[in-house]
Amino acid sequence: MKYGVVGASGRLGSEVVNVFNEKKYKLVFAYDIDGEWQNEKPDVLIDCSLPEVFEKSLGFACEFKVPFVIATTGLTPENIELLKKHSKQFPIVQSFNFSIGIQILLQLTKIAKKKLEDWDVEISETHHRYKKDKPSGTAKMIEQIFSDGKINTNSLRLGNVPGDHTVSFGGLGEVISISHRALSRRTFAEGILKSAEFAIKKEKGFYSFTDVVFEKE
Amino acid sequence: MKYGVVGASGRLGSEVVNVFNEKKYKLVFAYDIDGEWQNEKPDVLIDCSLPEVFEKSLGFACEFKVPFVIATTGLTPENIELLKKHSKQFPIVQSFNFSIGIQILLQLTKIAKKKLEDWDVEISETHHRYKKDKPSGTAKMIEQIFSDGKINTNSLRLGNVPGDHTVSFGGLGEVISISHRALSRRTFAEGILKSAEFAIKKEKGFYSFTDVVFEKE
Amino acid sequence: MKYGVVGASGRLGSEVVNVFNEKKYKLVFAYDIDGEWQNEKPDVLIDCSLPEVFEKSLGFACEFKVPFVIATTGLTPENIELLKKHSKQFPIVQSFNFSIGIQILLQLTKIAKKKLEDWDVEISETHHRYKKDKPSGTAKMIEQIFSDGKINTNSLRLGNVPGDHTVSFGGLGEVISISHRALSRRTFAEGILKSAEFAIKKEKGFYSFTDVVFEKE
Amino acid sequence: MKYGVVGASGRLGSEVVNVFNEKKYKLVFAYDIDGEWQNEKPDVLIDCSLPEVFEKSLGFACEFKVPFVIATTGLTPENIELLKKHSKQFPIVQSFNFSIGIQILLQLTKIAKKKLEDWDVEISETHHRYKKDKPSGTAKMIEQIFSDGKINTNSLRLGNVPGDHTVSFGGLGEVISISHRALSRRTFAEGILKSAEFAIKKEKGFYSFTDVVFEKE
Repeated sequence: MKYGVVGASGRLGSEVVNVFNEKKYKLVFAYDIDGEWQNEKPDVLIDCSLPEVFEKSLGFACEFKVPFVIATTGLTPENIELLKKHSKQFPIVQSFNFSIGIQILLQLTKIAKKKLEDWDVEISETHHRYKKDKPSGTAKMIEQIFSDGKINTNSLRLGNVPGDHTVSFGGLGEVISISHRALSRRTFAEGILKSAEFAIKKEKGFYSFTDVVFEKE
Repeated sequence: MKYGVVGASGRLGSEVVNVFNEKKYKLVFAYDIDGEWQNEKPDVLIDCSLPEVFEKSLGFACEFKVPFVIATTGLTPENIELLKKHSKQFPIVQSFNFSIGIQILLQLTKIAKKKLEDWDVEISETHHRYKKDKPSGTAKMIEQIFSDGKINTNSLRLGNVPGDHTVSFGGLGEVISISHRALSRRTFAEGILKSAEFAIKKEKGFYSFTDVVFEKE
Repeated sequence: MKYGVVGASGRLGSEVVNVFNEKKYKLVFAYDIDGEWQNEKPDVLIDCSLPEVFEKSLGFACEFKVPFVIATTGLTPENIELLKKHSKQFPIVQSFNFSIGIQILLQLTKIAKKKLEDWDVEISETHHRYKKDKPSGTAKMIEQIFSDGKINTNSLRLGNVPGDHTVSFGGLGEVISISHRALSRRTFAEGILKSAEFAIKKEKGFYSFTDVVFEKE
Repeated sequence: MKYGVVGASGRLGSEVVNVFNEKKYKLVFAYDIDGEWQNEKPDVLIDCSLPEVFEKSLGFACEFKVPFVIATTGLTPENIELLKKHSKQFPIVQSFNFSIGIQILLQLTKIAKKKLEDWDVEISETHHRYKKDKPSGTAKMIEQIFSDGKINTNSLRLGNVPGDHTVSFGGLGEVISISHRALSRRTFAEGILKSAEFAIKKEKGFYSFTDVVFEKE
């Protein structure tokens, strides 16, 4: 597989390059703060950059017309709508979090929510000091589960923490919490690899990382 | 409802008396380190005592032949067998933990276990310094979910903590934890009340608190 | 000791009455949402009410001219100034948190701060859903340690949690956290008792709970 | 600085090589499961291996007679005695944990211990599944603070966790915890670098990482 990366020299982008290279996949296109570099046409395009680059990045995807995996957090609902529109031409996998554990956390949270209807709910997320968006895209994914109710999200920025998320339910006599902690950015890069391998087999369509993880079930 | 309590003056027993009295239920029988006291025959018998008193307590249940709710932790498999045998004569609700939250924790743990098969699992439980059994009965309930695999349980004894339980799953790139924290012993007393109200409507049979909580589903 | 309580029927007020009564101290004055009740003149006045009642409460203290222990959270800097002024006439103990553990947390936080100067700092506090002020008075006490720097405070409201506080320091390779968890409101009531017994021996002066705890050191 | 590493290809050893190389220090000696490789005589020798290799490793240090930084966990008291004896000939820095944060945790724990004399104490440590010793060397360092009293240590092995340590103090009304979490092994490698730069300026003597961190105070 030949792949291209937008944001190749960033924190997540460089982990993606590591993980793809270990699989002997070949980097043939990179776009970055330092400029653009192209060798061949990629079979798949990965975006690990920032919302500011979204239009530029989508432009590349349209140009190549290849599967597009976008991991940028901080996208607006309008950005998502645009992605959905373009997914009629080529497959797009979009998620704010590419770890399998977060998929489990989302699933457990949905189940707990049903049982604990009159309990209070609080989300906490902790990330490294360099993270630009607040709350995290993952926290927004959790918030959507509670779209019908009142929920509060707390964002902590601490050193170099790769990413912690906790959903807490509080009743009058007890508290239940579901927590996820990423140990390194490699986790996300592996999820992106999995998504690229998933997308390359599709012709078109808009997919989430949930589709990638639970495809066979 | 007239009720009797074995272990009435203990930490949990006295909470049970509080909660039942608030409902205007009437304490008519008590057995305790200080002796036995009886006014009338109870409609339901609660046991919040210690394993040492198990036989004495079961004796009272047989004598009264009324619904029996037993919250004693540290019971042996033989004790449980004996309870099952007697439940053919009168209804018995037995659990090592009478909080609704722990029921949710057990359910979420079962789901997570299926998805995270090759992850490591660790249980931690923290209780007050007066707790006699180690690990807690609740930890043993969680252990049973992983009966087929390797699992490690850590028991902390700290001051006056009512009861914390955490199940952690560790993968190579991420960690997921499900935690429960009891805020006070009242939670358990309320679960026992719920169980007594459940049991009084049954003729016989052996029930867990899971049956009490999820009856209507 | 004869004592009076403003906010006697509230969550904390009723614990104070319990703890003082256990010591055979006599409640002779109470002011509450339900009205005022007086038997005799108290030797000490406790305020466990809300900022709205502050002026009324200070009025009682001036009238009785007895030691005044005030545990109200949400007081303004102007309220504190007024207390300091009146403490020239009778002793006042004022704190947003009357637990010994929080005093230790404050002390450890000061030490850690000196060693970890370029680390990020985050405060988290969790309290029951009935708590009116946000962030908690205790969180404000912690914030003051970092008055020279940037610090973020996260407030969670969950069920019936008596009060958790965590200070986290994040560096590029590691995270250090100092946490305190109150197990019940009784802890605070005991600190208030300790403060009343301290204040009654003073003629006048403005004291914090730190003064009460570390007096003899 | 020219350096040698025993255990160069291990998890920690390879991080040490990364961090030293970034500083333009030159690897001139390596000993490993794959054999021995030497280019020149090193100015400092680092040991990141296992207790089984201790004698071999000390043999190299004696042969080179250069500063020796030893990070092996699981050493016995006899091993430590032997190191102390040899430190009369060349400087040795020995620690079970080379992170600055753990030094702070140890310091805070000592202070808390003095204030909380009748509280219960529990240590928890979590590490990756590949860790051979249990409890961790760092947990043993914490245990030594409480050498006069009863203390319990809990060891969790979860996926790829670099290293968490928590000391909890439990009283009848409250709980205080001090926690440390390593975000990556790089933290330890940086502490080892700092120790090598410290040791190279000494003629002889037995030093801990505490000496390295607090030298100037």
